[in-house]
Amino acid sequence: MDQQSFSALNERDGVNKPNHISTQASNQIKKMRRKIITAEDLVAGILNQDKVALSRAITLVESTNNNHTEKANQVIQACMPYANQSIRIGITGVPGVGKSTFIEAFGSYLTTLGKKVAVLAIDPSSSISGGSILGDKTRMEELVKNPNAYIRPSASGESLGGVARKTRESIILCEACGFDVIIIETVGVGQSETAVHSMVDFFLLLNLAGAGDELQGIKRGIMEMADAIVINKADGDNVKRARIAKLDIQRALHLFPEKKSGWAPTASLCSALEQKGMKELWQMITEFETLTKQNGYFEQHRKQQTTHWMLETINEQLKNNFYDNPTIQAELEKQKNSVNNNEISPFKAAQNLLDLYFKA
Amino acid sequence: MDQQSFSALNERDGVNKPNHISTQASNQIKKMRRKIITAEDLVAGILNQDKVALSRAITLVESTNNNHTEKANQVIQACMPYANQSIRIGITGVPGVGKSTFIEAFGSYLTTLGKKVAVLAIDPSSSISGGSILGDKTRMEELVKNPNAYIRPSASGESLGGVARKTRESIILCEACGFDVIIIETVGVGQSETAVHSMVDFFLLLNLAGAGDELQGIKRGIMEMADAIVINKADGDNVKRARIAKLDIQRALHLFPEKKSGWAPTASLCSALEQKGMKELWQMITEFETLTKQNGYFEQHRKQQTTHWMLETINEQLKNNFYDNPTIQAELEKQKNSVNNNEISPFKAAQNLLDLYFKA
Repeated sequence: MDQQSFSALNERDGVNKPNHISTQASNQIKKMRRKIITAEDLVAGILNQDKVALSRAITLVESTNNNHTEKANQVIQACMPYANQSIRIGITGVPGVGKSTFIEAFGSYLTTLGKKVAVLAIDPSSSISGGSILGDKTRMEELVKNPNAYIRPSASGESLGGVARKTRESIILCEACGFDVIIIETVGVGQSETAVHSMVDFFLLLNLAGAGDELQGIKRGIMEMADAIVINKADGDNVKRARIAKLDIQRALHLFPEKKSGWAPTASLCSALEQKGMKELWQMITEFETLTKQNGYFEQHRKQQTTHWMLETINEQLKNNFYDNPTIQAELEKQKNSVNNNEISPFKAAQNLLDLYFKA
Repeated sequence: MDQQSFSALNERDGVNKPNHISTQASNQIKKMRRKIITAEDLVAGILNQDKVALSRAITLVESTNNNHTEKANQVIQACMPYANQSIRIGITGVPGVGKSTFIEAFGSYLTTLGKKVAVLAIDPSSSISGGSILGDKTRMEELVKNPNAYIRPSASGESLGGVARKTRESIILCEACGFDVIIIETVGVGQSETAVHSMVDFFLLLNLAGAGDELQGIKRGIMEMADAIVINKADGDNVKRARIAKLDIQRALHLFPEKKSGWAPTASLCSALEQKGMKELWQMITEFETLTKQNGYFEQHRKQQTTHWMLETINEQLKNNFYDNPTIQAELEKQKNSVNNNEISPFKAAQNLLDLYFKA
């Protein structure tokens, strides 16, 4: 087999290639294919506020190909000095509460103030429930066309840890690209709220009037994390019920312990449909920013968050390194069986495996 | 200084020892002091259903002295073949719900059936709130005197992880000592319920009538874990309210997803004070045991639990080994500062530390 048979131009194995394909032409094609965009190109594009470069860089960050990691790190590292100049807002709420319509209305309002708005989504469940990403895209059809907005759904089919890490890195890229309001959206199920909470400055819970908290599946812990609870769909016949709900929530909020930020969370009304309540909400977030920047909480909180992500990454990698070790993988099953047959205690089995790992 | 000056018999330094102390006598004393109970002695005592040996073994397991770990492991290892012959019941509920009185009544009832009942407590907060251990001891004054019962409070001042691990090992020792009902008690705050849930077969939530779930601080997640919700203090004027509460809870339980065990959790009434409802509760637990042993869940669940504890222990030790490393400790602060000053991303800092760790 000559070298040519290895060429990608050989489409069918076993079929001889006609001799009249010019070697020069095929080399030319291969050369063009090889011309991939460099880390420097991406960084230059991002700093030049080019959304295409931003999208490419996020795709690089999201890549599970190990060869891309180094390049992704270079891009992030180069963007670091230009990041951190934004307010990061987390938005959660159960499906049906109208998150997409709300973000569309809120994001559009912010662009009229001259803000640049990036929307990132954390939704590890999208690969299972399906459709939500495309759904969001179509539902935010105004915002997606807005030159001062950028919408990026999460990488589907990833674990929460993976998606969260990549979202956190994407925030840095968006900020370097000049976006000064970063909205992180999460569907109101499971653990993703905690992940979002650990990467935003302001955490907003979107609610509906009428349905009780229990029925809405909102966990106490999520209410406790919220800096604001906004009751959406306060329009038409719903206004009265929404006002009652607001009072109920306000009463419930008093029962929670005081926040370290010094901020007292409040309940408010809005109608994403009628684009009402957006101005008041932004004013509230601005007040939060002013207060927490004055009392030092804003910066201190961001520092805690970065430390948290550093430690989380370390802990995850320590585990990966252990469980990916071939010796451990072989022995793990044996030890598991001994434990399952009640031959040894789980603690002794753990010790056996750790001894093996640290000896090697 | 001669060798004698090192003797423990020299009570005051600098004061000469009278010569008439017999060397023979002092050697005799030292020899007796050195006669510490061996692992074999402890195991023999435990298998002989000796509660004093059991207590000593649990103290050994709870010891934070590294020299005791090996001996503790020997004892546990030797007890393993005699363990696992019990039903493990977790009991939780907020303070004031009457857990101690309930356990006293329920435990006493079980001993009248010829059962041997061990009560272990998980309460990492006891060192802070204080008094709860002694409080429990006095409140369970009938049970503590009962020859077929054994009550052991948790080691105070430990982290939850530490207490939980030690409780799990203590279960093995109690089972080898012939106890066939193991009750694990936890105070209804924070994460300890999850730890208890991961070491028991049957998880019981003790409630009160009248107060709403929100007011009782019971998280949805804990209700979801429960195999039974028992409304205590269903006595006197309270009976009617307790009956209504039972119906409410039963309705709420229908909303939860079906359990893997095939068991449908129910609400029931009891009065620990009047010792009512104990027979019915034990009957329910027996039904649970029969069902889950028939459908294979019981054993499968225990296997999952031991695997869980093995992996938890590994993950904890991997972290300890990393963060206790002096090179890492020195570098960690530097990397944290770089991250806090936005010089590098938290992920790059994590990578730097991991590279350093795995190179060494």
